[in-house]
Amino acid sequence: MEQIKVTLTETIKVLLEEKKFSTLRDILVTMRPYDIAAVFEELQDEKTPILFRILPKELAAETFVEMDDETQEFLIHGFSDSELKEIVDELFVDDAVDLIEEMPANVVKRILRQADKDMRKQINELLKYPEDSAGSIMTTEFISLRPDMTAEMAIKRIRRTGVDKETIYTCYVNDDNNTLIGITTVKDLLLADDDAPVKDLMEENVISVHTLDDQEEVAQMFSNYNFLALPVVDKEGRIVGIVTIDDAIDVIQEEATEDIEKMAAVLPSDKPYMKTSVWGIYKKRVPWLLVLMLSATFTSTIISSFEGILASVIILSSFIPMITGSGGNAGSQASVSVIRALSLGEIEFKSMFVVLWKELRVSFFCGLTLAVANFVKLMIFDLRGAENSLLIALVVSLTILGTIMMSKLVGSSLPLIASKIGFDPAVMANPLISTVCDSLSLLIYFGVAKTVLRL
Amino acid sequence: MEQIKVTLTETIKVLLEEKKFSTLRDILVTMRPYDIAAVFEELQDEKTPILFRILPKELAAETFVEMDDETQEFLIHGFSDSELKEIVDELFVDDAVDLIEEMPANVVKRILRQADKDMRKQINELLKYPEDSAGSIMTTEFISLRPDMTAEMAIKRIRRTGVDKETIYTCYVNDDNNTLIGITTVKDLLLADDDAPVKDLMEENVISVHTLDDQEEVAQMFSNYNFLALPVVDKEGRIVGIVTIDDAIDVIQEEATEDIEKMAAVLPSDKPYMKTSVWGIYKKRVPWLLVLMLSATFTSTIISSFEGILASVIILSSFIPMITGSGGNAGSQASVSVIRALSLGEIEFKSMFVVLWKELRVSFFCGLTLAVANFVKLMIFDLRGAENSLLIALVVSLTILGTIMMSKLVGSSLPLIASKIGFDPAVMANPLISTVCDSLSLLIYFGVAKTVLRL
Repeated sequence: MEQIKVTLTETIKVLLEEKKFSTLRDILVTMRPYDIAAVFEELQDEKTPILFRILPKELAAETFVEMDDETQEFLIHGFSDSELKEIVDELFVDDAVDLIEEMPANVVKRILRQADKDMRKQINELLKYPEDSAGSIMTTEFISLRPDMTAEMAIKRIRRTGVDKETIYTCYVNDDNNTLIGITTVKDLLLADDDAPVKDLMEENVISVHTLDDQEEVAQMFSNYNFLALPVVDKEGRIVGIVTIDDAIDVIQEEATEDIEKMAAVLPSDKPYMKTSVWGIYKKRVPWLLVLMLSATFTSTIISSFEGILASVIILSSFIPMITGSGGNAGSQASVSVIRALSLGEIEFKSMFVVLWKELRVSFFCGLTLAVANFVKLMIFDLRGAENSLLIALVVSLTILGTIMMSKLVGSSLPLIASKIGFDPAVMANPLISTVCDSLSLLIYFGVAKTVLRL
Repeated sequence: MEQIKVTLTETIKVLLEEKKFSTLRDILVTMRPYDIAAVFEELQDEKTPILFRILPKELAAETFVEMDDETQEFLIHGFSDSELKEIVDELFVDDAVDLIEEMPANVVKRILRQADKDMRKQINELLKYPEDSAGSIMTTEFISLRPDMTAEMAIKRIRRTGVDKETIYTCYVNDDNNTLIGITTVKDLLLADDDAPVKDLMEENVISVHTLDDQEEVAQMFSNYNFLALPVVDKEGRIVGIVTIDDAIDVIQEEATEDIEKMAAVLPSDKPYMKTSVWGIYKKRVPWLLVLMLSATFTSTIISSFEGILASVIILSSFIPMITGSGGNAGSQASVSVIRALSLGEIEFKSMFVVLWKELRVSFFCGLTLAVANFVKLMIFDLRGAENSLLIALVVSLTILGTIMMSKLVGSSLPLIASKIGFDPAVMANPLISTVCDSLSLLIYFGVAKTVLRL
């Protein structure tokens, strides 16, 4: 599919140069907004405003929403005020807000000037909500019904007002104070008798979120409860907007990417990898690399202070990377399991002791398996015929057992503690835990060596 | 919320012991299937079949679908055949298939015996599709229309047949050969004139997937194109089912979890952490720990073969964990960026050289920053007054630069190569790449030390 898209972009480029506008239109109207946006992003030249003008109005707005911010900004600069107004009029309010959040101040001013008064008011309302809150991803356009309408009246109302609502399938029933008292669906309205009152068709136990709730929790609710949309209410219980499932999916993808990045000690970014500059990537990666490198001073200090042991049994130093590596791997296995369970809402801090008890047993069996495998390997291969081979193999294998157990306990408890004190558990993943485990495993190593080898 | 759920489970337990069935029913009908399922999972005792019988039929089926397989199996053992039939009759076909895939053979036989002939046929059809294919997650229940129906007839048809279809909002238009020729939505049908023909209301450029397409690609299409459902067609272009967005969200979550697990060297599992036994977790973790520990033999061998250098400048051994650690971190930063971009469909193998050129520059600047910081730190703190301090600081800093560059290039290219030769890129993440980078960085270290210190 990717292959086809590229050829298509080239075809479109040629047609554009030859000014075959009606052919271009024929091609574009068969395509999806997401794919047309990809073509624009690949083109990125001064002819794109011409191509954009070829698109029918609604398709143009839908395509515009799918583009990255550079392409959007580039196009806006090429628009006349009336062209800009046409696009802005077609946008859903939440998409307009997303656009405004990405644009520089002068472009924002131009956009707001073109929006009609009512939309400008709604945009300004939405802009007040903090980033990553339910309020910031909701749309203020939805179908509201009254409890005493009949199914037939409700359907009529939807038919009359529904054309510019982002989703019409879930309808919200409000009382006279605009308090949300129930929800119903187009499916239920259609399948009911014409004169059935809405209040008999509505679900009164409405699950809603507050404007300030975290977007990740909101997205998780979509996945638990199979909603298509979720109402957002203010402190007084009045419905102020809805979050639709397409935005929830975007949040789920973004949050997973963010978790993965944090786990690999990359500062989270909201731009795709291929669209981030070298400098942008550098800035996301170098801080953690520096912090982790400097904190590795502990390991250097520990090794230096046991130089005597290493000097007398020089072969001990050759097992250091294997020991710290195994510890790091064991720790990150545990931390990743716990972090993912935390972000899917499966566990929370109060399960700490259940988790630790589980990890204690898992780590004992993992550690024992590795220690035995390692002992056999050392005796048969690495240390064959070496001086003190039995004792050294014993030191290394005992260290492995201790290191695996310590790493898994550290790896599983740090994310839980982080979540308790309000930090993001994902930051506690691999790199930070590896650094902690590195130091601790060296202490175990030298401690065991000192005891067993009587150094 | 979690807090409340626990208290609720306890309340329900007490009410159950006191046989207050009508109170229980009043409580349960206010709750969502997902939350009721959580109560059942927490209860897990012989009284749950009684509690289950209290639920109204439809809610009972919806709740049953949300339970984990242990609770489902436990309940089924407590059901009479006619009770089981009631549940099976209420299930959507795709949910019934999910259930059957998790149950042991004897339970499967009981379930299939209770399903009516038509449903049994549909279940058997779906069971033929390979795991993780579009066919395996689709449902065979959907609304199909003919192009020459009017909007009014279409709505009537939906009202007549829609009650047991999982989603009615997207309707599929087929010609006489059952070939999918267009889609339309309830929204479009409702907003159109009563006598408008369906063929004028349908979108003819239908995006569909094939039964054997990978579920991850299918889920990604939902996120790109904002669909609520996606038609699944066979080789002849006939529609055989639809994938609905709730199943797509589950796939997105599962695939993200799987990627995260693979990146941390855990074999992927489909059970939540808290519900996996100690033995289950052990089996998922120990294979990679063993493989990685044994492959660390390379690092031991490398260190042993440079024992002479270490013996003459013993302080060099104290920087080994810092160097291999920084290399591992730099490598996993790069690999994670590339792996995530691959699974979101942002890049593919043919972008290899663009990626490498990007990483080359990023890694040079990261490496330089770390090398300079490290040099300053070594000269001011660690090596102050030590013999040969300038040369040793130079060796360590040059090694850092080389290690970071090597690690980022290895980290970014291995996942791309894996994707090219048909392996899962996520397996190439942190642990495996760290092991490769550990060996290479030691070779760089001893090479630089030999040259600069003339050993």
